[in-house]
Amino acid sequence: MRDITGKPELYSINTATLGFQSSLPAIIDACAQRGIGGIAPWRKELDGCHVQDIARQLKACRISVSGLCRSTFYTAPTQAERQAAIDENRHALDIAAELGARCYMQVVGGLPAGSNNLEEARRQVREGIRQLLPHSHDTGVPIALEPLHPMTAADRSCLSTLRQALDWCDELDPEGDYGLGVAVDVYHLWWDPELFSQIARAGKRILAFHVSDWLVPTVDLVNDRGMPGDGVIDIRSIRHQVESAGYNGQVELEIFSSRNWWTKDQDQILDTSIERISEYC
Amino acid sequence: MRDITGKPELYSINTATLGFQSSLPAIIDACAQRGIGGIAPWRKELDGCHVQDIARQLKACRISVSGLCRSTFYTAPTQAERQAAIDENRHALDIAAELGARCYMQVVGGLPAGSNNLEEARRQVREGIRQLLPHSHDTGVPIALEPLHPMTAADRSCLSTLRQALDWCDELDPEGDYGLGVAVDVYHLWWDPELFSQIARAGKRILAFHVSDWLVPTVDLVNDRGMPGDGVIDIRSIRHQVESAGYNGQVELEIFSSRNWWTKDQDQILDTSIERISEYC
Repeated sequence: MRDITGKPELYSINTATLGFQSSLPAIIDACAQRGIGGIAPWRKELDGCHVQDIARQLKACRISVSGLCRSTFYTAPTQAERQAAIDENRHALDIAAELGARCYMQVVGGLPAGSNNLEEARRQVREGIRQLLPHSHDTGVPIALEPLHPMTAADRSCLSTLRQALDWCDELDPEGDYGLGVAVDVYHLWWDPELFSQIARAGKRILAFHVSDWLVPTVDLVNDRGMPGDGVIDIRSIRHQVESAGYNGQVELEIFSSRNWWTKDQDQILDTSIERISEYC
Repeated sequence: MRDITGKPELYSINTATLGFQSSLPAIIDACAQRGIGGIAPWRKELDGCHVQDIARQLKACRISVSGLCRSTFYTAPTQAERQAAIDENRHALDIAAELGARCYMQVVGGLPAGSNNLEEARRQVREGIRQLLPHSHDTGVPIALEPLHPMTAADRSCLSTLRQALDWCDELDPEGDYGLGVAVDVYHLWWDPELFSQIARAGKRILAFHVSDWLVPTVDLVNDRGMPGDGVIDIRSIRHQVESAGYNGQVELEIFSSRNWWTKDQDQILDTSIERISEYC
């Protein structure tokens, strides 16, 4: 396992961690001042920006993009809505390519509105991904399937486990021709008794590694994540497995924290992020 | 699949559903008036009761006990605490036997206080169950391992999936000599892509079937369950699988609902329970 202590060039900050307090150019500058090696921006932050300007700024700062967040949900009641989502995701791949993003992060969607049919939801997602793969290949931006915590299955992600994500990779891109892969997020997966065996199975499919911590108690299903060290996840052991499987990319910190971290100012969050990744990841 | 519409003799009410508003004898009477065939009481409700009196009342009302809730957590920092938990659970098996309970429900515990070692937690649980199995056999009350939703992994249950529960059954009671089995609770398991295949694998190991519904949004990780029909779980499809696997016991309604159902009076909850099981399960 790599020694990442005090090496912020190996860290990436998902901009959600900062609570969307400031513009992307300001975030990039603040990260550059601290020697942070990567960011993971959100598409909404790029609205109204010239993407090429952002790309230039990133290059000048030697900051890479560990992933572009995130897909429009693939699940929807009508074929027209599903096609619109695929079109939006196709366009997002172009933006990801302009930024040189390591991958395009997929939060796939939960149950279609009004439905309780999980199998149908999963079919819709796989169909959407299948249609996107050629464009992923053309742009050179791999698609990263991110299994989300089962508590989000109804309204955010019918993709819940790493095993399931890898089964979909095997189905949709058996030979790896399209580079389809997975994101391993400790917050979503730490509880899984199969986590280590599925990480080993994933091998080169691992396109991103996300860290944060599980708080006890957790009071919100989406926006109550902790900084590494605030909670109970043995993050370092998971990183050990991920790197043993071959991952050597950045360690991306992604926190949603309406009651705590988002109430702090951006500089404090960034300084703490570096300390905590160094100490607990 | 059985037709359970309008057949309350096939339903069981977990007393938690009623918010612990009244005494167990009063609950039993209220269930009997409605022709409900079973209850699942909690150990704390039996404190200060003569268990034999409860058993007599149940028999007179022709109400069976679909399960006794629930185990003292097996996970703890010290050997002495873990042994105390095993002793308490041994005593609870005696009570379950006096009530003629169909099984003794296991909520196994999360991480030991101060620990982030899930593997150790799981080892402690398996060791505790292993020690209890002979007494389970002697009392004639099978132990039901209940996988809980992964969102409870830190503080309630390091047993999170049906696959994991069945792996433990295979390890601890490979030949079924002790009757070790599982509880299938739709609330905890509905999201699992392996649910149907693991239910088929479970077969005769299924000792209990619990229903409730997943609300969108869910605002509390423990006490925000819906009545069948309030949420998005396709309960009937899961019951179909459970019965195809051989289960022919009662359908037990178990709800924790601090913001809704627990604010209603017991009669209303019971009447609605019957309607909803009939219509949605």
